[in-house]
Amino acid sequence: MSLLVVGSVAFDSIQSPYGRIENALGGAATYFSVSASWFVPVRMLAVVGEDFGAKEMDVFTRRGIDTDGLEHVAGKTFRWAGEYSGTMNEAKTLDTQLNVFETFAPRVPPSYQSSEFVFLANIHPALQLHVRQQLPGARAVGLDSMNLWIRETPEDLKKALAVVDILIINEAEARMLSGDMNLRRAAAVLRRMGPRIVVLKRGEYGASLFTEGSSFSAPGLPLEIVKDPTGAGDTFAGGFMGHLAKVGDLSESHLRRAVIYGSVMASFAVEDFGLARLLKLDASQIAARYREFQNLTQFDAG
Amino acid sequence: MSLLVVGSVAFDSIQSPYGRIENALGGAATYFSVSASWFVPVRMLAVVGEDFGAKEMDVFTRRGIDTDGLEHVAGKTFRWAGEYSGTMNEAKTLDTQLNVFETFAPRVPPSYQSSEFVFLANIHPALQLHVRQQLPGARAVGLDSMNLWIRETPEDLKKALAVVDILIINEAEARMLSGDMNLRRAAAVLRRMGPRIVVLKRGEYGASLFTEGSSFSAPGLPLEIVKDPTGAGDTFAGGFMGHLAKVGDLSESHLRRAVIYGSVMASFAVEDFGLARLLKLDASQIAARYREFQNLTQFDAG
Repeated sequence: MSLLVVGSVAFDSIQSPYGRIENALGGAATYFSVSASWFVPVRMLAVVGEDFGAKEMDVFTRRGIDTDGLEHVAGKTFRWAGEYSGTMNEAKTLDTQLNVFETFAPRVPPSYQSSEFVFLANIHPALQLHVRQQLPGARAVGLDSMNLWIRETPEDLKKALAVVDILIINEAEARMLSGDMNLRRAAAVLRRMGPRIVVLKRGEYGASLFTEGSSFSAPGLPLEIVKDPTGAGDTFAGGFMGHLAKVGDLSESHLRRAVIYGSVMASFAVEDFGLARLLKLDASQIAARYREFQNLTQFDAG
Repeated sequence: MSLLVVGSVAFDSIQSPYGRIENALGGAATYFSVSASWFVPVRMLAVVGEDFGAKEMDVFTRRGIDTDGLEHVAGKTFRWAGEYSGTMNEAKTLDTQLNVFETFAPRVPPSYQSSEFVFLANIHPALQLHVRQQLPGARAVGLDSMNLWIRETPEDLKKALAVVDILIINEAEARMLSGDMNLRRAAAVLRRMGPRIVVLKRGEYGASLFTEGSSFSAPGLPLEIVKDPTGAGDTFAGGFMGHLAKVGDLSESHLRRAVIYGSVMASFAVEDFGLARLLKLDASQIAARYREFQNLTQFDAG
């Protein structure tokens, strides 16, 4: 089934103990799209500036990503610079330039209006709501957010949460948004805000899924090489929503598989800088890593 | 099979957002013994002072713990005071009084010399080595340590590590001891120091097991109530070593089950202050929670 994402496309400059890249293609919508493109055709709703060229467009084209909704406007593309050190669990932001993203007003083009699966990546919640309202026929809508919007625009965020099915958010933000430090209770509070499915991203510790009466946790895969965690959360969301859109099924069993596919995709993303590893995948590698997650987690009855 | 533990017995004073207790029975050897006692008979090697009375001894007696090796000496029992807040992942130590523990020189009594499974809880590594040397016939020896010994007595710790089979340690301490921030590489470094089995404790995130050519991760159970994490790590070790001693088998399949039993026991420990929850268990609750871990982690093939 069709999968639409709205979010940022950016140029990232990243430093880690393993090296650095300058002005590399990034942004939430980019990581999400490239990741999900391994599962289903993806439609992208985003904005870029005059500095966004054929080389970048080619990445989307090669992954079969529909860019009808990628607006090209005057000015510069969103830019972000960050640095990782130590356990590399958190980026230190060195610079943020919103540029053309500052005045982004996403309009769903007619060719996207049939989209059944939708992901509202981390942008201003009023824009998320605006996109949601343009897609009344969507079967399943996911949403991500961040500390900035939880703090600055909580009312807008609550309105957006009320009309989505799936919340995919970092655990620290889940604690902040719910006002409860206990994750199980936090997930229950978040579910009462609207989304019946809550997925908490926990970085190297994996992810947890909370649904009506059930919870599921997947650990992170202990990787020998982690060069750049940028985009891991959006890559996770891409694998998660990608699997669900592919099977068109939100049953518990498929939601759990979707968490694993999200974890699989994120585990590839961090192995190299930017999109490098995600662009070099093939289906057999994805299947093999899914089995690695099975090996990592399986144990016999007591 | 027989399971011996050497470590601290203490009086703990603990505050958390859920209440407080004063001078409650605690210490690594206590949590380990009570936890393991649900699996096998346990022998305790420790020291207490004149303030350690019949009420405390009764806890050990009721759990069938052998206290032949529990020395009673002049002076006061080890005391610790700590506080938890926020995510409750780390204790803030308010007070430590080593008291009789300061001059503890553990001697394995003749009745313990046949012990096949041994756990060297977190004490000075020279004492851990001393106990290890008194048990040449042990089949499987586990060891825990902490930042203090890694920093202050690294050479003693390396000697102890060289003669144990299993290292059970917090992930932050694994990073510190190995000098590698990446956990998979850290585990490989630690395995080269001696223990062929490395178990990393990750607090609310669960635990990971590294053996020759294999790794296993179990997430933490998302609990609605976490009142007091004190002793969770030792309780985990008690369930882990307790299961192994019960089955007398260090195969990968049983090591994985042991991680789950350790996680099961730790999940109970944190639900109430001190030992309260661990003393109110029954075998059916342990079996039910093992099944909860199965439900929490299982997913179908991709």
